[in-house]
Amino acid sequence: MKKVAIIGAGNSKFGNRNDVNVSELAFESVKPSLEDAELRARDIEYLALGTTGAGALYEEILPAVVVAEYCGFTEAGLIRCEAACASGSAAFFTAYSAIASGKVDLAIALGVEKMRQVDTSTTMEWMGRAGYYFWEFHNFGLTFPAYYALYANAHMAKYGTTEEDLALVAVKNHKYGLKNPIAHLQKEITLDDVMSSMVIASPLKLLDCCPITDGSASLILASEERVRDLGIDTPVWVAGIGYSSGTANLSRRQDYVGLEASVLAARRACRAAGITIDHIDLAEVHDCFTIAEIIAYEDIGLCKKGEGARLIREGQTEIGGKIPVNIDGGLKAKGHPIGTTGCSMIYELTKQLREEADERSRQVPLRKYVGLAHNVGGTGHYCYVTILKR
Amino acid sequence: MKKVAIIGAGNSKFGNRNDVNVSELAFESVKPSLEDAELRARDIEYLALGTTGAGALYEEILPAVVVAEYCGFTEAGLIRCEAACASGSAAFFTAYSAIASGKVDLAIALGVEKMRQVDTSTTMEWMGRAGYYFWEFHNFGLTFPAYYALYANAHMAKYGTTEEDLALVAVKNHKYGLKNPIAHLQKEITLDDVMSSMVIASPLKLLDCCPITDGSASLILASEERVRDLGIDTPVWVAGIGYSSGTANLSRRQDYVGLEASVLAARRACRAAGITIDHIDLAEVHDCFTIAEIIAYEDIGLCKKGEGARLIREGQTEIGGKIPVNIDGGLKAKGHPIGTTGCSMIYELTKQLREEADERSRQVPLRKYVGLAHNVGGTGHYCYVTILKR
Repeated sequence: MKKVAIIGAGNSKFGNRNDVNVSELAFESVKPSLEDAELRARDIEYLALGTTGAGALYEEILPAVVVAEYCGFTEAGLIRCEAACASGSAAFFTAYSAIASGKVDLAIALGVEKMRQVDTSTTMEWMGRAGYYFWEFHNFGLTFPAYYALYANAHMAKYGTTEEDLALVAVKNHKYGLKNPIAHLQKEITLDDVMSSMVIASPLKLLDCCPITDGSASLILASEERVRDLGIDTPVWVAGIGYSSGTANLSRRQDYVGLEASVLAARRACRAAGITIDHIDLAEVHDCFTIAEIIAYEDIGLCKKGEGARLIREGQTEIGGKIPVNIDGGLKAKGHPIGTTGCSMIYELTKQLREEADERSRQVPLRKYVGLAHNVGGTGHYCYVTILKR
Repeated sequence: MKKVAIIGAGNSKFGNRNDVNVSELAFESVKPSLEDAELRARDIEYLALGTTGAGALYEEILPAVVVAEYCGFTEAGLIRCEAACASGSAAFFTAYSAIASGKVDLAIALGVEKMRQVDTSTTMEWMGRAGYYFWEFHNFGLTFPAYYALYANAHMAKYGTTEEDLALVAVKNHKYGLKNPIAHLQKEITLDDVMSSMVIASPLKLLDCCPITDGSASLILASEERVRDLGIDTPVWVAGIGYSSGTANLSRRQDYVGLEASVLAARRACRAAGITIDHIDLAEVHDCFTIAEIIAYEDIGLCKKGEGARLIREGQTEIGGKIPVNIDGGLKAKGHPIGTTGCSMIYELTKQLREEADERSRQVPLRKYVGLAHNVGGTGHYCYVTILKR
């Protein structure tokens, strides 16, 4: 297997981006990623696009060719990758594999999503159908806050996790979101703000939920030979990728306090990277709802099962704590443009591992120069875990 | 780069399959492919699903996890791949890369499409938007027969290709479709039948167009080590894959007599396989319309530019001719379930290269045991060319 490094990274401003179409939004991350790598679009041999809302949330039914052409990649090999909310990571894996196999030397993983040009109820229904039409949407009638509310209630009942613990995740992620210029929500919030916000699906309140966000993120990947030829100073190596899928039928889940797919994917990623979880300096985890971050701590092994709430209570996942998590604001404050999120997590890790997150004091202190991105699709229908090492 | 072989192949019955849902249809090819490889679903480490109509032509918006679970692949790595009508080949490339990179040893490429549960006008509009919403659909107002009619008229004007030449492609492919038990249209037709059929977009008539078809096809791929461990008798090796993309804006095309993406993809595939085009024993080409097959002959290099019509006139692309093409009936008679087609082409090549196409006298005589599959997305927006060798 050839070694593969990230040599360029870009991220658009996240937020309500009705000022641009999907191709223009993609270009906002493609351009800085190419500039970062000092390459031109025509140097890229393969493009993997992560996006999910094609034809449903925005107008392009088959967007890869349109986005690729606008960004200057015509003649490159081209594919759209979808794994629900883990689509960005799936695209990253696809671009990675194309290089690791020796097929190409330069590839781009590009995540882009436009979610806000349709009304919120359309988006919510669309997301509610993101698993199994018959069971998850039509029969149960659930949408995403309700899915994760099930998990929150089960976790609270079994482990004594409280609503305040959940709220602390939101407070932390907003604190860092304020320090991240590309974040959607750049506003500090208090525990009281969260606790007094409108109940969406008990116990989850408005401020326990990530926003509906537009945005794009891009990573330029290169083979070891090309890293050398190009004289890249700070390559960030892909140390290991793990993945799993899980049942799309909630009634078949073993319990509602963890995601089996996350456990498996994290274990496989660590094995591929040849590390244990205590090697990592920082993590990006999939905090679509506050409960999801606490569950992720446990599933990927930052703490034992049932101890996730303690980590957030003790401030162990802030800068200065045992293991900083979601220092970009996470899905909760940075935003969650579905097909983009995996690439944007990897963008943040790349910047952190290159020690380029100084602006507004977000740089995590590094010991082993290893970071982990945990990206869930659906409610554990998919999981991709990507480990990077400087 | 690790060597990768196809060790199992399955194909569902193509046709109007409103008797099954998308998961059941997928299973109809997954089951025989696993049986062929003598494996169980849980042996498979990675699944790449090619499908395009999710949420538009059939009810599952994000179908990969639903299909994977129904077929028994839960816990495998999972991705949906889309490259318009080349999605099946893109999924095949993704599964191939996962093995070639050394990441996994066993993967499945699965194409599935359900196109007939919505009315034909919905399907036609959806396909008409398969390029660039603004230019191709909204501004030009074209649908697919009209796109290819542009090419047919240009080819006729420049090279003297006639409507009868186009019709001969349909006659040939229906002849072989009748010999293929899984084909959608199993009916011999005459030149007169084609010429007297209803004009759809001049000069293309009803019988110049492929049908709207439901179906699935599956390929089990394995690393060289696993081929050896499993004691596979007749592995069919992936010799080379080439790909390209082309402009989604027809007004930017150089001409309308060939597809630049096909030329590039075929050249790259031959280079990857270390062969010239005259090494191949048979080809599957993307004959969504009869003109597309003639153009494909020229683009992939079976003849010089402008000589495609001569090949069909002389019967050179039938069994016994210089280079048999679409001996499964092609998209024209076998059918074109969009996301499935690439996998189904590779299914046919696998069967032919294993000399298992005897039923109803469709076996192509083999000299070098090399076959090529040419799969176009849109009107040359994407192209994937896959070369196999026994």
